[in-house]
Amino acid sequence: VNALDQIAIVLSHTSHPGNIGAAARAMKTMGLSDLRLVNPDVFPSEIANARASGAADVLHGAKLFSTLESALADCVYVIGSSARGRDFVGETTDVRTACERAMQTATTGKVAIVFGCEMSGMTNAEVLLCQTLAYVPANPDYSSLNLGSAVQVFAYELRMAAGLREGYVAPEFQLATQAEIERMFAHMEIALTATGFFNPHNPKRLFPRLRRLFNRTRLEREEVDIFRGMLRAMEESAKTQHAKVRSAKP
Amino acid sequence: VNALDQIAIVLSHTSHPGNIGAAARAMKTMGLSDLRLVNPDVFPSEIANARASGAADVLHGAKLFSTLESALADCVYVIGSSARGRDFVGETTDVRTACERAMQTATTGKVAIVFGCEMSGMTNAEVLLCQTLAYVPANPDYSSLNLGSAVQVFAYELRMAAGLREGYVAPEFQLATQAEIERMFAHMEIALTATGFFNPHNPKRLFPRLRRLFNRTRLEREEVDIFRGMLRAMEESAKTQHAKVRSAKP
Repeated sequence: VNALDQIAIVLSHTSHPGNIGAAARAMKTMGLSDLRLVNPDVFPSEIANARASGAADVLHGAKLFSTLESALADCVYVIGSSARGRDFVGETTDVRTACERAMQTATTGKVAIVFGCEMSGMTNAEVLLCQTLAYVPANPDYSSLNLGSAVQVFAYELRMAAGLREGYVAPEFQLATQAEIERMFAHMEIALTATGFFNPHNPKRLFPRLRRLFNRTRLEREEVDIFRGMLRAMEESAKTQHAKVRSAKP
Repeated sequence: VNALDQIAIVLSHTSHPGNIGAAARAMKTMGLSDLRLVNPDVFPSEIANARASGAADVLHGAKLFSTLESALADCVYVIGSSARGRDFVGETTDVRTACERAMQTATTGKVAIVFGCEMSGMTNAEVLLCQTLAYVPANPDYSSLNLGSAVQVFAYELRMAAGLREGYVAPEFQLATQAEIERMFAHMEIALTATGFFNPHNPKRLFPRLRRLFNRTRLEREEVDIFRGMLRAMEESAKTQHAKVRSAKP
């Protein structure tokens, strides 16, 4: 059993069909599929279809209910999403903690995350059906997330809590060894001396600064090779320059 | 300085003005305000205004640029949001780690989070301007978050990384002491014996089971008082019942 299949997203009395579509899309991107709608104002709807984009399967699989109680009947744990505390005397927590608990409980039964209507959120009667009330930490001056965005944040935290954190990885490159890096610095000292930029009798802080930079970058073997090539070219042009200067002397 | 003020959200070549409005709203809910638009298809727009809802100030404060380079000129660290790895050879990481790094760096200068156009994301040339490429872990079969939702997840993780995790808290109730709970169990044994539900000579597993339940709930003082009241009422009706039975005998 995929634990994310045990999570139901329940939208109660949603006004805007676009938000139902956005919720379906948010769910599918995070691997959720159980969408439940309690008395939506408009459903089905072309606007919902458009906003669902590639999540038509989740949207069309949505189950309709006339009461929140019936939508929650098979759930063993109910989390309400609310931006306000609303005299709730039960457990309250942030979305991250709530989603961690949801995924722990999902091993034993269905878990619901409930979202109230856009304008006023859940009613007091709906809040009483929740075991935990969860908030997305937000700007106290404007804490009103769009419904689709709120579903996205919960769905994202559920996926993270399920441990499904993989994405793409950058190709791996071979790091340079300390010996390769030391030969590069020795070569650099010779080449920079040849060009006249570095004076070994008055070294100042040049090489400590360069070491600081290259230590921070964790040099790769290919990069050391590039620098060695640049240093060889530097030595060549310094030689040519000297030869010109010599041949120009009377 | 509020570290979140150091974060710029940069939307490059956005097609749908609604997504610009949704991004502004997502930003404001999380306390971000520096919105930068690179060659948006349509801006300003009534559709953007409507989707921004209460974030008109962020939307109207958006700065317009003709190239991504110019939008990033004052930034010391650039994170690109991308659902695909796209041959990027630099650092790649998930949104949570990227946002933690962003907030660490924000103490020393402006940090940009770049979002490419809706259909194809950032161009390869745009990706090359990023020091880090970040992804929202997603369903491999459908990883395409709506642009506004992607901005919401990044903005949320930035706020979490900034340590601004407060929300509402449930009112605190006085927990019951062990002595109060033990007196409740003693009373329960007497009352349940009086009703005939509990037989002290054949106790079975009743009290261990009840202790397991009440230990899990972390009983509050007021709740112990409620139970004591229920137990007293139980004792009373058991007495009345016995009296009736006695008086009914011939």
